[in-house]
Amino acid sequence: MVKAAVVGGSGYTGSELGRILSRHPEISLEVMTSRQNAGIPVHRALPSLKGFVDLAFEAQLSEDADIDLAFLATPHGASMEIAPGLLSRGIKVIDLSGDYRLRDPAVYEKWYGQSHKDLDGLERAVYGMTEIYRDAVARADLVANPGCYPTCSVLSLAPLMASGLVDGKVIIDAKSGTSGAGAEPSKATHHPACGASITPYKVVGHRHTPEIKMVLDAVSDAGNVVVFTPHLLPIVRGMLTTSYVTLKKDKNKDELQALYDAYYAGRRFVRQASVPSIPSTVGSNFIEVGLERAEAGTVVAMGSLDNLVKGAAGQAVQNANVMFKMDETVGLDFPGLGV
Amino acid sequence: MVKAAVVGGSGYTGSELGRILSRHPEISLEVMTSRQNAGIPVHRALPSLKGFVDLAFEAQLSEDADIDLAFLATPHGASMEIAPGLLSRGIKVIDLSGDYRLRDPAVYEKWYGQSHKDLDGLERAVYGMTEIYRDAVARADLVANPGCYPTCSVLSLAPLMASGLVDGKVIIDAKSGTSGAGAEPSKATHHPACGASITPYKVVGHRHTPEIKMVLDAVSDAGNVVVFTPHLLPIVRGMLTTSYVTLKKDKNKDELQALYDAYYAGRRFVRQASVPSIPSTVGSNFIEVGLERAEAGTVVAMGSLDNLVKGAAGQAVQNANVMFKMDETVGLDFPGLGV
Amino acid sequence: MVKAAVVGGSGYTGSELGRILSRHPEISLEVMTSRQNAGIPVHRALPSLKGFVDLAFEAQLSEDADIDLAFLATPHGASMEIAPGLLSRGIKVIDLSGDYRLRDPAVYEKWYGQSHKDLDGLERAVYGMTEIYRDAVARADLVANPGCYPTCSVLSLAPLMASGLVDGKVIIDAKSGTSGAGAEPSKATHHPACGASITPYKVVGHRHTPEIKMVLDAVSDAGNVVVFTPHLLPIVRGMLTTSYVTLKKDKNKDELQALYDAYYAGRRFVRQASVPSIPSTVGSNFIEVGLERAEAGTVVAMGSLDNLVKGAAGQAVQNANVMFKMDETVGLDFPGLGV
Amino acid sequence: MVKAAVVGGSGYTGSELGRILSRHPEISLEVMTSRQNAGIPVHRALPSLKGFVDLAFEAQLSEDADIDLAFLATPHGASMEIAPGLLSRGIKVIDLSGDYRLRDPAVYEKWYGQSHKDLDGLERAVYGMTEIYRDAVARADLVANPGCYPTCSVLSLAPLMASGLVDGKVIIDAKSGTSGAGAEPSKATHHPACGASITPYKVVGHRHTPEIKMVLDAVSDAGNVVVFTPHLLPIVRGMLTTSYVTLKKDKNKDELQALYDAYYAGRRFVRQASVPSIPSTVGSNFIEVGLERAEAGTVVAMGSLDNLVKGAAGQAVQNANVMFKMDETVGLDFPGLGV
Repeated sequence: MVKAAVVGGSGYTGSELGRILSRHPEISLEVMTSRQNAGIPVHRALPSLKGFVDLAFEAQLSEDADIDLAFLATPHGASMEIAPGLLSRGIKVIDLSGDYRLRDPAVYEKWYGQSHKDLDGLERAVYGMTEIYRDAVARADLVANPGCYPTCSVLSLAPLMASGLVDGKVIIDAKSGTSGAGAEPSKATHHPACGASITPYKVVGHRHTPEIKMVLDAVSDAGNVVVFTPHLLPIVRGMLTTSYVTLKKDKNKDELQALYDAYYAGRRFVRQASVPSIPSTVGSNFIEVGLERAEAGTVVAMGSLDNLVKGAAGQAVQNANVMFKMDETVGLDFPGLGV
Repeated sequence: MVKAAVVGGSGYTGSELGRILSRHPEISLEVMTSRQNAGIPVHRALPSLKGFVDLAFEAQLSEDADIDLAFLATPHGASMEIAPGLLSRGIKVIDLSGDYRLRDPAVYEKWYGQSHKDLDGLERAVYGMTEIYRDAVARADLVANPGCYPTCSVLSLAPLMASGLVDGKVIIDAKSGTSGAGAEPSKATHHPACGASITPYKVVGHRHTPEIKMVLDAVSDAGNVVVFTPHLLPIVRGMLTTSYVTLKKDKNKDELQALYDAYYAGRRFVRQASVPSIPSTVGSNFIEVGLERAEAGTVVAMGSLDNLVKGAAGQAVQNANVMFKMDETVGLDFPGLGV
Repeated sequence: MVKAAVVGGSGYTGSELGRILSRHPEISLEVMTSRQNAGIPVHRALPSLKGFVDLAFEAQLSEDADIDLAFLATPHGASMEIAPGLLSRGIKVIDLSGDYRLRDPAVYEKWYGQSHKDLDGLERAVYGMTEIYRDAVARADLVANPGCYPTCSVLSLAPLMASGLVDGKVIIDAKSGTSGAGAEPSKATHHPACGASITPYKVVGHRHTPEIKMVLDAVSDAGNVVVFTPHLLPIVRGMLTTSYVTLKKDKNKDELQALYDAYYAGRRFVRQASVPSIPSTVGSNFIEVGLERAEAGTVVAMGSLDNLVKGAAGQAVQNANVMFKMDETVGLDFPGLGV
Repeated sequence: MVKAAVVGGSGYTGSELGRILSRHPEISLEVMTSRQNAGIPVHRALPSLKGFVDLAFEAQLSEDADIDLAFLATPHGASMEIAPGLLSRGIKVIDLSGDYRLRDPAVYEKWYGQSHKDLDGLERAVYGMTEIYRDAVARADLVANPGCYPTCSVLSLAPLMASGLVDGKVIIDAKSGTSGAGAEPSKATHHPACGASITPYKVVGHRHTPEIKMVLDAVSDAGNVVVFTPHLLPIVRGMLTTSYVTLKKDKNKDELQALYDAYYAGRRFVRQASVPSIPSTVGSNFIEVGLERAEAGTVVAMGSLDNLVKGAAGQAVQNANVMFKMDETVGLDFPGLGV
């Protein structure tokens, strides 16, 4: 049994980790921390976990906590303060913030507005997009869990990018449910503002842009221009990305789908669909991907997933499974709600 | 031309007053105030009013403002600080806060948590439920504009209550769109919290309860027990109330509807419907009312309206029309969106 | 291993049974039938079940199907044609339609518009509200699975009704997500009609009214007047009921909650909450119940659940567990999504 | 006073024409037709128009109807059967279907699946995108009212396209509220299917693609490749398009916005916004347009509008105003709801 802690457990990602880990047969959830809820029972803040997580929130992870693994559901900037100490005590770390995702500290500083404080960690961190980096994840003790947008857009594009068929420009039009914004109220997520609309935000300025570019460049072994436009949807859970690339050499739809079949052979959580559906994935760790061939060599590549599961907590548990040499599906092999 | 100011113009009610008054043929909007937006053009904060309201927000209403009428879209507690000065300068006041709604200062203190600071004003204020108190409104210089919930529930019940047929207990199950909560973000109106749910709130403790009781008691000339349960809906605009009363003497549905026909004869903004519809009223000053006869003498009385129009700014303009001897429909006689 | 069939598997209830049974450790899903999808793989119609249900839909259940249990997710009227044959072959039946819910065939005829064709079955059927009738369910071979509205309203009221404290009138104001209407498009569930509204429907005429009365009468051992008003919510999954009863003898809130504690002691799937939340229950078999004391001895009793799980498929599996002498939580003991 | 008829008046577009025309000071609505509602009062089918449209639906437009103008809110294929007769009787026609939008009958046949039956009409029809073709509309007796998607995407791109700065490829990622699908229920608009999702549909196969290309080609005086992906949003009213083009010669954001200022100088209904907002436009004839400069010469051009107003009925009335030599804003100069 792997003993795990969730640090920063009262937000949506922490809550989702609680939901998944409470039913995981090989990982036991030993500690959840929350500064604002310290001392109160977890189910008081997260009623759906009553009877599933019998812990009280601790203010922080104690020095002598007997755990093998820590999930950091902490804000950007906080994770790089915490991770080194954990690693030094032999605790493996999966960080769900952006702190260890960008290989290049200069890029981190540009997009996160602060200098990186753990360059050693940054060096050893493995980017945990499990379908792409499983082998490296298996050897890692520090995993940077990918952002929700990168997961959805990269996985829906990777087989194309890896094929060498695509010219170097990628346009990603992304749409996310509001839970991606976290549990803290804001003007953007105030229901009267967003509840009957779809709102583009941080157009050409979202932090997931360099993260997407980093992985697409690696997958395609080439530099790419990434144009990324996120939109806020009036739904709570779920994400869709619609991406546009141009083929250098023409292929028909069947040939393109065959690339996906081959690339994702044996990968349980990636499912091809003629049109990816959000409800098919909600509550689950599955991503649906699909494509169409448009004019002039353009390919429209689509992906859908649950931003809190495959886009966050689910993929983190998938990485934990890999890090601890379990089948990657353990504790995650349940279907989405469907409707 | 009546010259008007909107005090507290950057919230939803103020914005809605701007929308309506900008097209009103007999009232000119001369001033909008907003402390937080002082100095900036109205359309910067409220883009839909660009080209309709060519004003910049003022920090507050100046002493020498040349106006005939002030709409106070200020928070509870602030209106009673402002109104006396305005009245003393001969400016008529329509207050959209709760400050002048409850006749009894002790009841005000109990529900609003502060003692009333303008007992003279409270004495002279007229409760502006136009369909019921039009004659008094016509003579008033200070009108307390009703709350959205009282408007919807009282207008859907008034003919029954006035008939003397109803025993003294009224159960009101009310559902409101989130714009009723105002422009300030909060945990309750955070989209992930409310966007896929319906949430009862302030059960047995909402401030509109004594206001509803006050009017129903007046209309029925009797004391009533009012049980009022508001719910937050995952829609932005619109309200529905479903109320339950018991008949002391049995009447069939046709007889009951005849009471409504008679009571609302000639009242443009009240429309009978077999089932009241929110979309039929959205954007307009109309309320739809309807009823069914259930078992054991129970009547289910329903009402629907746009909480920002008939439930707030529209009814305020309707009152302004009456106060200034215009037809009550001037500037308000446009249909709802329908879909 | 209990071998089970789902008859009528391509609707929302059938799909949900597939979702739950595919992960059930003691029940194996052997057959799913669907007339309209006969011959095609289940995952073609229900993509979220790909990799979980490896069956093709059969047109109907064959005479020699080797199963122990059939879930009938068939329309009203169809179940009573199918059930007798199944029972005669020793197959236990859980019927999710309305066919076996109403004990009195005259009441059935009145509300369902057809005479009952299986009076023997009606006689032996047990009403499967598990928390109330578990012992009878354990002995049954034909279980009438309750409607979603009755489940939510009865479970949130039962401890009060059983206490003998309540006078004989119950007002239930119920709100349901649209998935309760089933998979067939209609004017009522057309998104432009219902997506920004809340719509009362079948006011004083919904078939769940006599079902609710039947159970409340049994629980309270007295006749009751039930006034039931359903509303269609603009959400997909989830239900809330807000009910109003009057106490004959006054009790405070603590005393009333103690009645619930006692009544539901040891019942895993009923959870008390200060305000029941839909998201806390979505995806799970849990119901949240809560209450407030209002004026004049009125109690506001609230309940929330997922209409497709505790309101349909989940409770059906709970009943199956009981019928086959398993713990009632087997295969169902997972938390709701929470957000 | 211009006397007008609405043919096909019980759908959403017809209803919206009723809403607008009922308040139009220079156009009187004389006739509304509807086959399915023939003989019944308009307000029975469209309750929000009660007291605004005092007509009963006629089965069809009579031969001797005394009207100057007919709005055809009829299905594709029906308009080209009706228009020639009206024109021959001297009645001007604004067709809101797709029948007269595509100049080339071969393109029409390819995308609408039937040969065109009124080639004379097609020849004389003017494409009524008012901001672009106002002069031609002023001389027309047959106007093809643009589709909602073409209106939103073309108006948000036209100044760029007309500048000659853009290379020949245009990617349009479009999102529409469900009212765009019309009043007839379908699987796609069934609330449980679409109410918590965003669904791409007719990817690379939507009929508005050639319409958009036709206008963009005309505006840019060059051939373009148009990739168009529509998505169904879980809102009722409103549309957003996010388009991606590449500049042949670099310009900064200010220079690009200046192109818009110049192109739309004096055009009341086009409003620049840093981020276009749906709620700002809902209920009104306004469109908001905005842009950002992304990497590698890419421009992200966004537009938002109310699909039933500027995207259909409002623009039709705007065209009517122009055809009858009124100011184009008559009867349309009211702001959107804002929230």
